[in-house]
This record gives sequence, C-alpha cells and structure tokens, in this order.
Amino acid sequence: MSSSGFFILTPICSIAALVFALYLAFSIMREDEGNDKMKEIALAVRLGARAYLKRQYLGVSLFFIVMFIILLWMAFKNYVVIFVPFAFLTGGFFSGLSGFIGMSVATQSSNRTAAAAMKSLNSGLRVAFSSGAVMGLTVVGLGLLHLTAWYYFLDWFYSGHPLPANMDKITAITSAMLTFSMGASSLALFARVGGGIFTKAADVGADLVGKVEAGIPEDDPRNPAVIADNVGDNVGDVAGMGADLFESYVGSIVATSALGVAAGLGVAGVTVPMVMAAVGIVASIIGTFFVSTKEDATQQALLAALRKGVWGSSIIMAIASYFLIRWILGVEHMGVYWSVLAGLLAGVIIGVVTEYYTSSNFKPTKYIAEQSLTGPATVIIAGLSVGMMSTAIPVLVVGAAILASYFLAGGATNFNSGLYGIAISGVGMLSTLGITLATDAYGPVADNAGGNAEMAGLPPEVRKRTDALDSLGNTTAATGKGFAIGSAALTALGLIAAFNSQVVLLGKTMNLSLLNPNLLVGLFIGGMLPFLFCSMTMRAVGRAAGLIVVEVRRQFKEIAGLMQGKAKPDYARCVTIATAAAQKEMVLPSLLAIVAPILTGVLIGLEAEMGLLAGATVSGFVLAIMMANSGGSWDNAKKYIEEGHHGGKGSQAHKAAVVGDTVGDPFKDTSGPSLNVLIKLMSIVAIVFASFVMSVSLF
Amino acid sequence: MSSSGFFILTPICSIAALVFALYLAFSIMREDEGNDKMKEIALAVRLGARAYLKRQYLGVSLFFIVMFIILLWMAFKNYVVIFVPFAFLTGGFFSGLSGFIGMSVATQSSNRTAAAAMKSLNSGLRVAFSSGAVMGLTVVGLGLLHLTAWYYFLDWFYSGHPLPANMDKITAITSAMLTFSMGASSLALFARVGGGIFTKAADVGADLVGKVEAGIPEDDPRNPAVIADNVGDNVGDVAGMGADLFESYVGSIVATSALGVAAGLGVAGVTVPMVMAAVGIVASIIGTFFVSTKEDATQQALLAALRKGVWGSSIIMAIASYFLIRWILGVEHMGVYWSVLAGLLAGVIIGVVTEYYTSSNFKPTKYIAEQSLTGPATVIIAGLSVGMMSTAIPVLVVGAAILASYFLAGGATNFNSGLYGIAISGVGMLSTLGITLATDAYGPVADNAGGNAEMAGLPPEVRKRTDALDSLGNTTAATGKGFAIGSAALTALGLIAAFNSQVVLLGKTMNLSLLNPNLLVGLFIGGMLPFLFCSMTMRAVGRAAGLIVVEVRRQFKEIAGLMQGKAKPDYARCVTIATAAAQKEMVLPSLLAIVAPILTGVLIGLEAEMGLLAGATVSGFVLAIMMANSGGSWDNAKKYIEEGHHGGKGSQAHKAAVVGDTVGDPFKDTSGPSLNVLIKLMSIVAIVFASFVMSVSLF
Repeated sequence: MSSSGFFILTPICSIAALVFALYLAFSIMREDEGNDKMKEIALAVRLGARAYLKRQYLGVSLFFIVMFIILLWMAFKNYVVIFVPFAFLTGGFFSGLSGFIGMSVATQSSNRTAAAAMKSLNSGLRVAFSSGAVMGLTVVGLGLLHLTAWYYFLDWFYSGHPLPANMDKITAITSAMLTFSMGASSLALFARVGGGIFTKAADVGADLVGKVEAGIPEDDPRNPAVIADNVGDNVGDVAGMGADLFESYVGSIVATSALGVAAGLGVAGVTVPMVMAAVGIVASIIGTFFVSTKEDATQQALLAALRKGVWGSSIIMAIASYFLIRWILGVEHMGVYWSVLAGLLAGVIIGVVTEYYTSSNFKPTKYIAEQSLTGPATVIIAGLSVGMMSTAIPVLVVGAAILASYFLAGGATNFNSGLYGIAISGVGMLSTLGITLATDAYGPVADNAGGNAEMAGLPPEVRKRTDALDSLGNTTAATGKGFAIGSAALTALGLIAAFNSQVVLLGKTMNLSLLNPNLLVGLFIGGMLPFLFCSMTMRAVGRAAGLIVVEVRRQFKEIAGLMQGKAKPDYARCVTIATAAAQKEMVLPSLLAIVAPILTGVLIGLEAEMGLLAGATVSGFVLAIMMANSGGSWDNAKKYIEEGHHGGKGSQAHKAAVVGDTVGDPFKDTSGPSLNVLIKLMSIVAIVFASFVMSVSLF
Repeated sequence: MSSSGFFILTPICSIAALVFALYLAFSIMREDEGNDKMKEIALAVRLGARAYLKRQYLGVSLFFIVMFIILLWMAFKNYVVIFVPFAFLTGGFFSGLSGFIGMSVATQSSNRTAAAAMKSLNSGLRVAFSSGAVMGLTVVGLGLLHLTAWYYFLDWFYSGHPLPANMDKITAITSAMLTFSMGASSLALFARVGGGIFTKAADVGADLVGKVEAGIPEDDPRNPAVIADNVGDNVGDVAGMGADLFESYVGSIVATSALGVAAGLGVAGVTVPMVMAAVGIVASIIGTFFVSTKEDATQQALLAALRKGVWGSSIIMAIASYFLIRWILGVEHMGVYWSVLAGLLAGVIIGVVTEYYTSSNFKPTKYIAEQSLTGPATVIIAGLSVGMMSTAIPVLVVGAAILASYFLAGGATNFNSGLYGIAISGVGMLSTLGITLATDAYGPVADNAGGNAEMAGLPPEVRKRTDALDSLGNTTAATGKGFAIGSAALTALGLIAAFNSQVVLLGKTMNLSLLNPNLLVGLFIGGMLPFLFCSMTMRAVGRAAGLIVVEVRRQFKEIAGLMQGKAKPDYARCVTIATAAAQKEMVLPSLLAIVAPILTGVLIGLEAEMGLLAGATVSGFVLAIMMANSGGSWDNAKKYIEEGHHGGKGSQAHKAAVVGDTVGDPFKDTSGPSLNVLIKLMSIVAIVFASFVMSVSLF
C-alpha cells in the first residue's frame, strides 16, 4: 500500500474516536442522576461553568478577531499564506470546542459518579472514567480531523493553483500547516491561564477562610465559595487541560511533518506522524476496554486497572508503529521507529519519577509531611526542595531521549533526519493521548463527585469511596502532568528546529553559535520569561483569591444563621467574582507569549529570537516540573497527615501542611501547566511571524 | 608611559589597600569594648565563629589535598601546566584568608559597635562601616596582590624557560592564570554553602522555637540558639561573602586578561583589567572618606552617607578609566572604555531595581506585607511572585550591557574584541568592590551589634539605634547581592568565552550551533543544575534547622528556670550541632559543581559542556536574583509589619510574615548567593579540565 493509502486511516480513525466518544457520552447520560439535592448541586456547578466559559470565549473572541485582522493584513502583505488567518480561527475553534465538550460531559458526570458510588467503588470509577474518556477521545478526534481536513484541502488546492515561490507541493502544504496550531495554542493559553486562575482563586479562597479560619471541612455547603471551587475544577482542570492537550497533539504532529520535508522523506515523512496518531486512537479505544475491575476492588486494584489501560495502549502502539514505519518509510528508515520508542519510553519513565516524588507512598512526600511538625515554614522549604530535586531525572531522561532519537534516526549522517527523530519521539509520547488524557480528566470528575456527595449530605461510606477515587485521580493527574511537560519539551524543540528551517526557506542563514551575543541575550531573556509568566499568574491567583476571601468572610459575617446551616450562602456571587477576576488577569500573561518573541526578533534579531525560544524551553521545562511536583507533593503530604499521621486532621502539623497545599495550588494548577503552552505558543508565534520579523528587524 | 609602566600601580595599590585595612583594624581595636557582659557575649560569638572556621578549613583542606594530587597528576600528564596545582593552593589559601580576616575584625567590632551606639547612631555607623571596609579592602588587596605576584613570577619564569607549544609568552601567562581562580572558587563555594547552611540553620531554628513557639523576642538571651545565630552571621555573611567576592574579583580579571590575548590586544589588553582594579582600589579608599554624617543623622541621611561613598568611588573610577584605557590601549580602542561604563551603569541600575523590589518603601514589599492579612500561604505566594517578577529588569539590563559592551568594543568587526568588551564590563562593575563590599559587610556587624545589645540588656534607645543600623544594612546587603549576581553573569560569560578560546588553543573547533543536539542536551542539564543545587542546599538548611529546633525545645524543657531567666542555656551545644551539620551538608552540593561539567564533557562531549555552562549561567542568574529578592522582600515585609502596620508585632499578620521571612532565609543567604559561585566554578572547572576531557571524551 502506498503512503497515501495509509493516510485514509487518518479521517477514519478520527471519526471513529468521535463516534465512540458520543456513544460513551450517551451511556453516561443514561446513568442515575441521584436525588434532587444532588441534581440541584450539579446544576449549579454546570451553570456556573457554562457562564464562565461563555464569558471567557466572548473575551477570547475579541482577541481572535484582532489577530485574524492582523494575520489577514500579513497575508495580503505576503508575510504568510492566505490560509493562515482562517486556520488560526479553525484551530482556536476546535481547541475551544474540545474543552467545551469535555467540560459539558464532566459537569453531567459528577453527580452521576456520586450516585454510582452509592452502589460501589467500581461503578463510580466506571462513570468517572467514561467521562474522562469522552474528553480524551474528543481531543484526539477533533485534533486529527482538523488537521486531516486541512491537509486534504491544501492538497486539492495546490493541485489546481500555482505553488508559492521555491516550494514543491508538499513543502507548501507543511509550511502552511505549521502555522495552524497558533490558533489552538492561543486558545489553550487563555483557557489554561484563565481557568487556572479561576480554579485556584476559588480553591485557595475557599480553603483559607473555610478550612483554616472557620475550621469547617472541605466542600462544606456552608462555605460560599464551594460551588465556585467545583466550577473551577471543571473550567481549569477539564476545559483548560482539554484545550492545552489539543494544542500539544496538533503541535507535535505538524512540527514533525514540517521537519519530514527538510529530512528529505517526502510525502511519506509528512504522513507518518498523522497515520501514527490515527493508529494511536485505535490503541486508545482498545485500551479503554482494559479498564475494569472487580466490584470489591481496593484502591491499588483500581490504579492497576487504569494502568492496564494505559500500558495496554502503549504496547499496542509500540508494536503497530514498527509495522507502520516499515511499510510507509521503508526498512531503511527503521531508525525512526527507535526514535518513537525512545519517546514512548521517556514518557513512561517521567511518569514513574513523577509518582515517586508526589505520592505519599514514597520518601519525598513523607519528608514534607514530617517537616510539618516544625511549622509551615519548613513545609514550604521542604516542598520547594523536593520540587527542585525532582527536575533532575526528567531532564536527564529527556536529554537521553533527545540524543537517542536524534542519533537513531540518522542524525550523525543527516542533521535534518536527526531533528525529525527528535520531533517524532514527541509524537510517540503523545500518540496514546486518547487514553492517558482519559485517566487524567477522570480526576476532576471524581473530585466534583466528592464535593457533590458532601454537599448533598450522602452517607460517609459514599464520601469515603469518592475520596478514594479522588486520591487515585491525584496520582494519575501528577503522572499526566509529567507526561504533558515531557512531550512539550520535545515538541518545542521540534518547533524550534522548524522555525530554523522556515527561516532557511525564507532565504536567510542564521548564526546560531552559542557565543553570538545576540543569541546569548535572547537565551537570557528566554530563561527569564517563564519566571515572569509565573509571577504574573501566581500574583493573579493571589489577587483573585484575596477577593474571594473577602467575600466569604463577608458572607460568614453578614448572613445570619449561615454557620448553623439555617441559611444558604450566595454561591453565585463567588462564581461571578472569580469569573471577572480570571478574565481580567489572563490578558497580560497571555499577551506576553505573543509579544515577547516578536519584539525580541524585531529589536535584537532572529538569532536572539532563536535564543529566546531555547532559553524559554529549558527554563520553562525545569520550572514546570518543579512547580507541578512541589504542588502535587504538598497536596499529598496534607492528605497523608489527614490519614492520621503526625497528629492527623486538626493538628498543628495539619495546619502547616494546609499552608503548603495552598501554596501548591497555583503551582500545580495555574502557573506550572500553563508553562507548557507558553513555550510552544512562543515557538509557533516565532514561526508565523518569521517573515514579518525578518523584514522589519533592526539587526 | 608604557603599559608595563602602569603595571607597577598594581602591586602598589594592592599593598596600599592592605595597609589601609590594617590601619582601620587598629583604629577599631582602640574603640570602647563595652561592659563585661558585652565583652563576654562577643567572646562567645568570636570563639564559636573561630571554632567553626577551624573545623571548616580542616575539612576543606582534605578536599584541597585530594584536588592538589589530582592536578599534580594532570600536570605530569601534560593536561595542565605545572603551576596549576600550586596556584590552586594559593588561590584557596588567600580566598580563605580574606574570609578569616574579615570575620576576625567583624567579631571584634560587634560589641564595639554596640558600645559606640550608646553614644550616638553616627558613632555606631562609623565602627560598623570601618569593619566592613577592612573586609572590602582586604579582599581586593589580597586578590590583586595574589594575581600580581603570579604574573611577575610567570613573566620571569617564561623569560628564562621554554614556552609551551604554539604559545607566545603572554598567551602562556594568561592561559596559566586563567586556571588560578579554581582554588579561590572552590574555597568560596565551600565557604558560601557551609557558612550559608550554618547561619540559616541557626537562624531558622532560633526563630521557629523562640519567636514562633515560645513567643520570646529575637536575640533573647534565653534562646539557646541565639549565639549560634550570631556566629552564623559572621561565618556566612562575612567569611562566606568575603571568599565569594574574592573569587568574583579574581575570576573577572583573569577571564578578561585571557580574552585580551585572543582579541589581539597583546600585553596591554592583559594588563588593563589589573591596572583598572588597582585604580579602583584608590577610588574605593577615597570613597570611604565620603562616608560620614552629622551626629544627629536620620536613617535616610545614613543611607545617603553610604551612597555618597559608593557613588563617589564610581564616578572617580569612571573618569580614571577613561584616561587609563586611552593611555594603555590607545585612542583607537576607546570602545573598551564604553564597555567598562556599560558594566558600571548596569551594576548601578541593578542595585536600584533590587532596592525597589526589596525595600518596604515601595509597592512590592508593601504588597507582601498586605498579603500577610490572609495568612502565611498568601505571603509565600506573594513573595515568590515578587521575586520572580524582579528577575525581568536585571535580565534586560544585563542583556543590554552584553550587547552594548560587545558592540562598543568592536564586536561587529572582530568577534574576540567583542567578547573582551563583555568581560571587561564585568571588571568595570567590580572595580569599586573595595567600597561596595564595605557597605555590604557592614550589615552583619550591625546585626550582631543588635544581638549584643539585646543580650547585654542595654537600654531600649541603644537597641533602637542598632536596629536602625541593621535595617540600613538590609538595604545595602540586597543592593550588594544584586551587584554580585550581575557581575557573576558577566564574569561567567567571560569564562565561557575563555573556555572556548582554550579549546581552540588545544586544537579543536567546537560546533556551537544551538541546534547541535549534544549542546542542546547540555543546555537542559545546565538549566536544571541550579535547581538541583538549590534543592540540596535548602534541604540541608531544613535538616540542620530541624536539629537545632529539637535541641532548643529540649533545652527549654529540660533546663529548669530557663524561661524565667534564672538559668543559662547551653549555647555551645547549638553551635556544635550547627557546625557539624554544615560540614556534613556542604560536601555534596559542592562536589556537584566539580563533577557535573567534567562528567557531561566526558559522556556527551565538549559541546554539551559548553551548553551546560550557558544553561547554568542563564538559569542560575535568574534563580539567584529571584531567591535573593524574594528573601530580602519577605524580610523587610516582616520588619514593615513590626513597625506597626497591619496589626504590628504579635498579630496574626506578623506570624504569617515571620513564616515568609523564615522561608526567605535559605533563599537569600544560602542557596541564592551560592549560585553565583556555582556558575563560575563550573566554568573554571571546564577550563582547567578541558584538555583532560578532550582526551577521554566519548564524543
């Protein structure tokens, strides 16, 4: 079969993913919704989440319209091809749609999960996991379908229209598609940052007044911020993450395709990543069937069940890619297969390392818990220290993956083949995203189910089951984050290499020497940007949380009978406050990602821009791991104490651990995960604006 | 006058610095020592500090012996010239001696400062500042004298002995001298890390139990860790800082000299940085005479007095360098002068920015103080956010200084001239170190004077005066740190460039392209190392502080009548515990700096090592600024609350702010300042071991 023959798998599999997601969504909707109280709570969360997304998409639309006009102007000036502004819109639309669908299903699933948990732990798991799977499959289905549609269109278009100067058809197609993920990335950044600010402002605000000051439990219905907290899980961890991984998925595929041309692999090199993604979808769907367990399963067994799904898919993928690459690229390019395997393996190792540093079964988190005995300061120092320590192995593993994939793909003799190897190792890591995202997106649903059970006053054994599901979700979420960060680093490198190829295509050779002072200055600026970005987002969370704190305190004081459970708090007001704050706060950090590379390119030149991208990738990668793992570890240290260690709930140690957890909230759910998007968006912006920057640069 | 004529200034000025320091030391010794109680306390601190340094130098000697043998072996194998092992010893010796002298004077000055403060604020300032000046002038005097002696020796030696292959005399001299700062750097790292761990373990331990748990004031004589805390200020902030800046000073000069040869400036290019340093000494000595104020001076006036000294020296230096460079290098190389000026200016701007972010007169620190109203978690988030934000301008300023000094020195036509420009801008920044270090080293003396006054039960107005001096010291310390970090970045770049020249001299051309995967992997590893290093050092502080906490609690519980002031605590035991812990904990992080570049070079090649150095410089620079400024800002936010804002001392807000301050302690006094040394030591290790790594590298 020719490579174009295999390509038919791409639309088929992406549509299959969507159909299967639809089937799962319908089966969730058929589940028991629980009692009236549960329905009422779920409705409040759903409405809050919708209201947030509506407002967010409205705000983002404005940005998209402005950018569309700018890109249109650039197209008329011949800085970009005419498709770019339109692809910018479609990319943003589908990225947003992925988040929206995931969130809609998640908000329908939380009360159903709680209701199912009344029956058994396993029933709860099934509903929550299905919701996660809808999200995972929607993201990969829409992502791949979007790319395929554009590929077919461009292939048709360039068959009947003149090609751009100095380009053959496949170069024209990939060079246009490379710019397509800018829309998805922009939306992802807004979704991650805005959602991240919302969720953590609500969470921190609710905890600070509720848990710490008033001493009422988490998710207590008397806490006015409790609905906002639950809304936050959905808009941040579900909608934000969906948009984010949509972008990762699309970005890694287009970067690889573009480098495939430079590597001289022709159409086959371009289609391989897409076909691999298609096969990955099948592997993911098969994997979901592995996720089942006995009715009386322990938590360990549940984790094993989820793992079976992920590992099963990975093994299927590892085997299938071997034949795919052999058939499409031919036996002389089997090195590419080993690059894919290096990526898959690196992803798995990073997952294991993340678990080691964040799970309370291991030394680091136990150490943080122990430090809580000497107060909050030592908890903070210990958590930062664990997070910083946890960057070492992932960096070495990614480093090994880079070298392995470069040299295995033939980099020693052909530089561009090596770069193709690095990029495709990222695709390998992300190919089973359908199922890894499912295990990841299941977490917030379980978290919300717990909130629903608590607020509806369900019996303690139900809350205990939802807690078990939630705790499992923390582990998978941490693993998923490690995975997302690792793939982001590889994808960013692919995009940086593609940026260089793009500049070469435009007829300029850059002096990429590390001792080129312009590049060096770019490296410094790039190394600083993730810090600046985190500062902005953390400060935004602090500010927004402060507003929530004031509001919750006000309601506690002013609403008579609230603490006695006789009066209802004004949930909606907290949601409105968090929404408004998130919208306002997300603008500046998001603009940074777009403005910084362009401005650096214009003022200090393309080489500085290249340095900026590399510097930001390196420091962003390290900082993202540190923040994710510090945050995860603090969270689990707190849970470990709540299980009865070091004095248990209510002890001084517990109070100290809550401080750690609160600091960790913006680390792991706002700033950390947004860094992934930041480094990729900057690379894509550099690519899209390359021609423009070249023509106006002062250097 | 020929360039060698000017060179005679170097020994003259360095000896002048030492003579003047001696004069100042004698005049301090003539001051009133205070009452018996004060003398007794000062003696306890002095003995503790000496005991610590003795034990530290003993431990470090072991390391020096091992390294000496290794270097000797390398010299016999022709990997380095025969002088390297000996210069390694002398460098380490003089670096340690600088720290020792500074500390001896400081521990003699604290009670004398307290006694003088009984008379007036101004008298207190004069004694404390004189002590700082002894330190500053000793560092620059010994540093320059050491270099000069070696220069004369090598010049004499190579006049009568055969030159190494492919080298003329001046190349042989500079290439040997380039390796000389390894001894100083190694000692500096041990001093910074060991001293930093000691001081912060004692401080954190004392505060956690004393201030937070028992509710007794800072420096209360009932606190068993209070002497250890005061010892810590001397071994960390004085001895550690002295060794550190000795190293910066020497490192920046030798890197510039080495690049002077590559830039084709001959002997003149080599001697200019040394002669500039000599003139900087004169400028610093003159500057010390500007530091005086009226007897009834306000704190603002005191700060103005210190500033007058620093600014005066800088202006003298700016004028003198113009003529120096014109006479030595000639009118055609005046670009070098503008590079020097760029460095001086960048240093000043970084100082101003640091003050903005860390002083409670400005918004950022006030913002942190305000966040204390919602508890410790928001204080931590706010402080981290301020620290991260504060990295932006220094990075841009250093970036601008790099570009300006590169292009002004003629980088556009001659690459090596440009690199020389970057390196000499670092020398410009450090040329007035004599006085900037004086204002910096004055801080711990004032801090100790406060401790002495508190423990000796002096009247409140004396304590108020020492507090004013201490608070002023915080501002100058923060400014000094910004300065040290900025110069470290420029020096590290100079050393990296010198590493490249060295490899070229050895006959190998590196592929320094940013897209070289080996270099890229090195960049990732380098970007991670500062995080790993900070993790190790912060964890060490946490562990050591934990031991102190346990001991203080034990003494509170077991020593009857202690809290009533009827029994004396066992101060010595806390000193012994902190000493032992610091010695144990400093080994691993220090070895990291030596092992990481060598191992990376051997396993992934010289290009990866180059990437490692660049990555570590970028992320180390950013992280160091962040940690220094977060720490400084937390400290001052706490002080701001203690002045009566947001509820003042004893309020919930104050407790929250103390948590921030405690987290900030290892940030600003252990991990942050050690990073400066780390990045430079790694570069020097790379240079010294270049030939060895080349011959055994796997790549």
